Amino acid sequence: MNAPAVATSQTQPSALRDPQDLADSLFRTRRQTHCLAAPLGVEDQAAQANEDASPTKWHLAHTTWFFETFVLQPFLPGYRTFDPRFNYCFNSYYEAQGPRQPRAMRGLLTRPTCFEVRDYRAHVDEALHAVFAGAFAKDEEVLKRIEIGVHHEQQHQELLLTDILSLFAQNPLRPAYREGGPLRARHEAEPLHFIQFEGGRRDVGHAGEGFAFDNEGPRHDVLLRPFKLADRLVNNAEWAAFMSDGGYRAPALWLADGWARVARDGWRAPLYWEERDGQWLEMTLWGLKTIDAAAPVCCVSYFEANAYARWAGKRLPTEFEWEFAAGGLAVAGNMLGADNLAPRPSPPGSGLRQMFGDVWEWTQSAYAPYPGYRPADGALGEYNGKFMCGQHVLRGASCATPDAHARRTYRNFFYPHQRWQFCGLRLADEA
Amino acid sequence: MNAPAVATSQTQPSALRDPQDLADSLFRTRRQTHCLAAPLGVEDQAAQANEDASPTKWHLAHTTWFFETFVLQPFLPGYRTFDPRFNYCFNSYYEAQGPRQPRAMRGLLTRPTCFEVRDYRAHVDEALHAVFAGAFAKDEEVLKRIEIGVHHEQQHQELLLTDILSLFAQNPLRPAYREGGPLRARHEAEPLHFIQFEGGRRDVGHAGEGFAFDNEGPRHDVLLRPFKLADRLVNNAEWAAFMSDGGYRAPALWLADGWARVARDGWRAPLYWEERDGQWLEMTLWGLKTIDAAAPVCCVSYFEANAYARWAGKRLPTEFEWEFAAGGLAVAGNMLGADNLAPRPSPPGSGLRQMFGDVWEWTQSAYAPYPGYRPADGALGEYNGKFMCGQHVLRGASCATPDAHARRTYRNFFYPHQRWQFCGLRLADEA
Amino acid sequence: MNAPAVATSQTQPSALRDPQDLADSLFRTRRQTHCLAAPLGVEDQAAQANEDASPTKWHLAHTTWFFETFVLQPFLPGYRTFDPRFNYCFNSYYEAQGPRQPRAMRGLLTRPTCFEVRDYRAHVDEALHAVFAGAFAKDEEVLKRIEIGVHHEQQHQELLLTDILSLFAQNPLRPAYREGGPLRARHEAEPLHFIQFEGGRRDVGHAGEGFAFDNEGPRHDVLLRPFKLADRLVNNAEWAAFMSDGGYRAPALWLADGWARVARDGWRAPLYWEERDGQWLEMTLWGLKTIDAAAPVCCVSYFEANAYARWAGKRLPTEFEWEFAAGGLAVAGNMLGADNLAPRPSPPGSGLRQMFGDVWEWTQSAYAPYPGYRPADGALGEYNGKFMCGQHVLRGASCATPDAHARRTYRNFFYPHQRWQFCGLRLADEA
Amino acid sequence: MNAPAVATSQTQPSALRDPQDLADSLFRTRRQTHCLAAPLGVEDQAAQANEDASPTKWHLAHTTWFFETFVLQPFLPGYRTFDPRFNYCFNSYYEAQGPRQPRAMRGLLTRPTCFEVRDYRAHVDEALHAVFAGAFAKDEEVLKRIEIGVHHEQQHQELLLTDILSLFAQNPLRPAYREGGPLRARHEAEPLHFIQFEGGRRDVGHAGEGFAFDNEGPRHDVLLRPFKLADRLVNNAEWAAFMSDGGYRAPALWLADGWARVARDGWRAPLYWEERDGQWLEMTLWGLKTIDAAAPVCCVSYFEANAYARWAGKRLPTEFEWEFAAGGLAVAGNMLGADNLAPRPSPPGSGLRQMFGDVWEWTQSAYAPYPGYRPADGALGEYNGKFMCGQHVLRGASCATPDAHARRTYRNFFYPHQRWQFCGLRLADEA
Repeated sequence: MNAPAVATSQTQPSALRDPQDLADSLFRTRRQTHCLAAPLGVEDQAAQANEDASPTKWHLAHTTWFFETFVLQPFLPGYRTFDPRFNYCFNSYYEAQGPRQPRAMRGLLTRPTCFEVRDYRAHVDEALHAVFAGAFAKDEEVLKRIEIGVHHEQQHQELLLTDILSLFAQNPLRPAYREGGPLRARHEAEPLHFIQFEGGRRDVGHAGEGFAFDNEGPRHDVLLRPFKLADRLVNNAEWAAFMSDGGYRAPALWLADGWARVARDGWRAPLYWEERDGQWLEMTLWGLKTIDAAAPVCCVSYFEANAYARWAGKRLPTEFEWEFAAGGLAVAGNMLGADNLAPRPSPPGSGLRQMFGDVWEWTQSAYAPYPGYRPADGALGEYNGKFMCGQHVLRGASCATPDAHARRTYRNFFYPHQRWQFCGLRLADEA
Repeated sequence: MNAPAVATSQTQPSALRDPQDLADSLFRTRRQTHCLAAPLGVEDQAAQANEDASPTKWHLAHTTWFFETFVLQPFLPGYRTFDPRFNYCFNSYYEAQGPRQPRAMRGLLTRPTCFEVRDYRAHVDEALHAVFAGAFAKDEEVLKRIEIGVHHEQQHQELLLTDILSLFAQNPLRPAYREGGPLRARHEAEPLHFIQFEGGRRDVGHAGEGFAFDNEGPRHDVLLRPFKLADRLVNNAEWAAFMSDGGYRAPALWLADGWARVARDGWRAPLYWEERDGQWLEMTLWGLKTIDAAAPVCCVSYFEANAYARWAGKRLPTEFEWEFAAGGLAVAGNMLGADNLAPRPSPPGSGLRQMFGDVWEWTQSAYAPYPGYRPADGALGEYNGKFMCGQHVLRGASCATPDAHARRTYRNFFYPHQRWQFCGLRLADEA
Repeated sequence: MNAPAVATSQTQPSALRDPQDLADSLFRTRRQTHCLAAPLGVEDQAAQANEDASPTKWHLAHTTWFFETFVLQPFLPGYRTFDPRFNYCFNSYYEAQGPRQPRAMRGLLTRPTCFEVRDYRAHVDEALHAVFAGAFAKDEEVLKRIEIGVHHEQQHQELLLTDILSLFAQNPLRPAYREGGPLRARHEAEPLHFIQFEGGRRDVGHAGEGFAFDNEGPRHDVLLRPFKLADRLVNNAEWAAFMSDGGYRAPALWLADGWARVARDGWRAPLYWEERDGQWLEMTLWGLKTIDAAAPVCCVSYFEANAYARWAGKRLPTEFEWEFAAGGLAVAGNMLGADNLAPRPSPPGSGLRQMFGDVWEWTQSAYAPYPGYRPADGALGEYNGKFMCGQHVLRGASCATPDAHARRTYRNFFYPHQRWQFCGLRLADEA
Repeated sequence: MNAPAVATSQTQPSALRDPQDLADSLFRTRRQTHCLAAPLGVEDQAAQANEDASPTKWHLAHTTWFFETFVLQPFLPGYRTFDPRFNYCFNSYYEAQGPRQPRAMRGLLTRPTCFEVRDYRAHVDEALHAVFAGAFAKDEEVLKRIEIGVHHEQQHQELLLTDILSLFAQNPLRPAYREGGPLRARHEAEPLHFIQFEGGRRDVGHAGEGFAFDNEGPRHDVLLRPFKLADRLVNNAEWAAFMSDGGYRAPALWLADGWARVARDGWRAPLYWEERDGQWLEMTLWGLKTIDAAAPVCCVSYFEANAYARWAGKRLPTEFEWEFAAGGLAVAGNMLGADNLAPRPSPPGSGLRQMFGDVWEWTQSAYAPYPGYRPADGALGEYNGKFMCGQHVLRGASCATPDAHARRTYRNFFYPHQRWQFCGLRLADEA
């Protein structure tokens, strides 16, 4: 589901809408997706790790289908559809685009093969080149849709990595997506400080130039009360203390639905932690590793994040507190470009750190429409609006988020029980 | 679950805290619960209609257990517990109070019998009389807990009625809780108008005198944009138009999770509507009746309410819009005291009507803590806070809500798929 | 389901078919059913203990519906149906009789009430008296159907008791159906001996006079190899040894589907055994009792019985070995008439004991049609034939079986995972 | 589950136990498995079509693991295990061999890759060559185990094909395992005749020379009554008549558990039939094809076969009737060697036809141990005995059965609801 939201009503051209810049971004993104799939075997690309995940091959094809369906078919005269049956195979959830392979059965799509999907991508890339070579290079609607497609594909780049991690974590061989291993922190974990923010009437949401999904607007003002925000993410050492203190066995710390999950599924640690011979290890894209105490805790659900905050005597921030606090910060950090493929310990220093990159940060805000939000008509209107129920907003970005994809107003969203994304938390408190 | 929330931090004495007033309220409420159960046979009182519902007998005993556990045992010296095993039988969800009969198996509690539960109630009532006769009549904590217990029991009065309706609706004989039938509207449905409200910075939440649950506070200010609110509830005739227009078959109108429910459970009308020989009937507490076109639609889920609003080109209000709009209105309407036991058509006139009574009104607001909210320690702290995830707030009151229970700041809450309560909707729109 | 099978093709009049004898048997059985329900409260009679069980009230009504549907409506001129809606309420599984209350929702039938069901029974009894008073007393088809109805009701007498035990075992108060408690064995358990039987070509199945269900015929010959049969049932002391030896933790002893159940449901003892403070107790119709080491083990599944036999180095008998071995024995034992309501230790002595009464004995025989068996046409043909798949035959009778119901050719049947009946086992071995 | 049964107690050397013959058979079988996988892409080999099926790659590895575990590791000195982790990956259900990848998650084993599995096979093949080159070529236990392994692998050859068909049938592209298509019958369907057989005391089960699984013995005598058996299989035209006559909508024809499946899963035709534009097509290993009216119906469950027989006024044969009837027939027919990969119409002529090949034939016999059967100790004893509950025996062979695998005493077995094997039926009747 939580594939990207679609911008529908930007009235101003975004910076990327210079056709040449957009083309550069487009083809760079397309190539990057291929690179992410490159370390994987054919089988790895075809399997579906869990009901929420998709096969790599499906990500490769679905992002291609998106351009074919929303750009090439409606706008490029004479475009020849690669295979009309792919609309059934690779439509994700667009009811307006017709019936589709049931989500839980994407792993059965052994055909088309990886190689056919590669050809499909080439076919569509070639047609996209033709778009830029032709008169459409100036059609604002075409450019806008391509831009959405770029951001859509960036979202799927992150999903591709998280889904592969889920797959490999369930394989008894515990294979590594990448061999070797990230350098481990030499230094101790940084102490955690709270930073004070003033309240008041603040503008939030996207406005002005630059791309944003429709769920980031309309821009509007909100009231904030004074609050404090931790200067770094909660780390593994702290999470281990929560566990040692019986955090997973104390119902008073948990939301009722969270406690039911703990009981039903036997949760006793983050998703990818496993105990072997009395030692906790963690499955990562680098294989099964000892846990880096100073690195941010990762792959925890909202239920767990909330229980931890309560145990710590704090709370999770709201999405607007987070957005306001991130105000003057550069959108930079341990994201996909850094190529660490794992969250890293907080750098030393003072002030807010790790706001972008490492892990997405659960907020206490339910994922809901901003005042005045209306989804667009047609299939693209299904992108976001129909998921605005039962989920929570995450802010920031993770070590798997393409750098160009992150921004201060970005709203990621997942169900409170979901754990397979790179999700962690930052504490907040009353001022 | 959605049993009541517990006030924990009222610093000012509520109006009811005059011991004599409180005693009156207490024993009136206790008697009223008995009256509600009176039309029911022994079997009716023992069956559990669905996994979210409870048997009548369980409601009678659980509300009694609440006083025994939180008032009599800790505060009344020499109090003799009626039966120590009842703590297991009649604890609802208080983890701090120990293990309990699994929720889905409350209907297996054929023992204690109805008559033993009646004795249990008498035993506890007698001890509560002793509380007021003794020195505790001035103990603020005791009075506060009794007051909570009164409101807790009022909540269960409504649940008792909705659970019985669910039970009778699944009985092939379609029995009536009350014989006869409400007088039907002679007049046509009132036309629907929207009333304009100004935006601005507004205070919401409970403050000052009078009882409130802890989830109604802390009082705080919010920003409202100008908005419009319908002057009456959506009625059955309007809902029938939605159905005729294919509302239950158009995925574009639905939230993704809602559409999944429609498909899975075959929803095609409100919960208690059934088609017989081409005519739609509705199961009510008065038995199976023809549908009153002018009466508010009832027993619809949030998913349905939201789809309807989208179909109508409108939206649902936020809980704060509703609270602000209800500002100067008397807390009065077709509630339990009117003894209609069914929603009634909007009275003629102008201005906001049906704000209290008839049906609870779904809002688009997720059920979340107010800024600064902290649940109390101990079992009573489990009352509200642990349910603040995944549910939506409903405002107003229904035809089954005790009149003394309704107030402008009251926050009822249910999951978006739940339909067996007296829930309907009122439309809102941008100004 | 495992309600009785219907005799369809007896060509010879059965002994009971003397009208006066049949009438005596009928009304005695009808009264006996009432007596069995008498110790129960109204709520006890209305609750459904599990998906395989039925409420007492439903048993009372369904057996009555059987006479109304298959005897009175087709044969008694002028018979006034008590309430035509009861056909929906109390039809069990007869597709030919139309739709019916879903099995899992029988506990929601709070109406009709116990008292209405009592009136229903009286109404039908009166009409049955009229049958005998009139010309029909000589109509062979009428008498045959009444006779089936008597045996049908006897089956439900046993189900009534086992369903009540299931209900009470899930009640935290562990109520007793009967107060007091059976006298405990003073003596030690009898030693177990195997008795040798010769093989050969043997006739099995019902023939000749006397009632039998259609699944007991046609009589036919089978080949038996020489075999040994234990002279008494496996007792609780022996079962405890199996448990102590890790029987519930050794997959090699179990059928694959049985081991899956052990793992999924956490089986570690017979259904009604519970460990308290290190001691094993057993829930019985007399309440929660210490376990009588010399009494037969009870309420075990086929999977458990089979695992035990393998552990003991023996096997379960076939149904035909059992029937042949029971050859000359009187059909007598600890059945319902003895009013013990619990299995009792084997009496001292030599030779086969406990063949009838105490507990039903699992056999290794799948429940299948005898050669030449054809179910009758019409609703009564659904009685037996449609269950001949996936179940196992049990032979003998239990402490809850009406004495008149037991016979040497009787075939009881349940699924291999079912445990809530009074089922135990007797070992067999190769000669 | 329904992987092969293991012979444990053959006291006489089987014909194949000439070491050279056995070696020939072994390596021919090993090569044949490779050939069956050859038309498949890498993804096709890795996906798991349903919970009862396994990926091709898993079949390739598991059959190899069987030789490694039961032959090479215990008997070949100095054998180097290819990868000790494969025991977890490729153990199917042998509890005695330790924990294993959960059955439903075999499709997640993207590692080891196809190529590693190929290497695994080569490694084991090489070691098996060494066995024959060494002193073990005369060790009877070694030879016996190798022989079992050959038959085991033959079973998995058939499963490989049926699992691939299941996979391709769920792929929206409906790919063909083999291109082209079998030649269609030019002739009309042959008329169906019943052949009369005498009853009497008959020997059944395996004895003497030649390999058999342990579940085919001990040989013993059974009593047969005179019976009739259809001279050919039920064909698609006949099945279509059953459908047209409402066979899937008539509960009176069905076993109770079968009717529950029909209702729950919406069965209305054999598993791989699909209606397009009013025409029925059938998914086959040759892709989606029009239905050959004269060919045997295929991929129906026991429930369907039994309902059809009842509709036709006949019954299914017992396994012993079938075995006796097959007495003097050559074990020959449309099996894997014919390379049709689909059932074919009955050849013209008289006498019993299609007894081997085309489709497995459901019998009314529950899968149960023969008198005196005892499973062997140790892991190989788990091969068969633990599945003897709840399943039905099928006799004959199918178009996917290796010719050397078929024999008159062979007992295949599946649950009555399973449909994804090449299963059909032949009618029987009383004489």
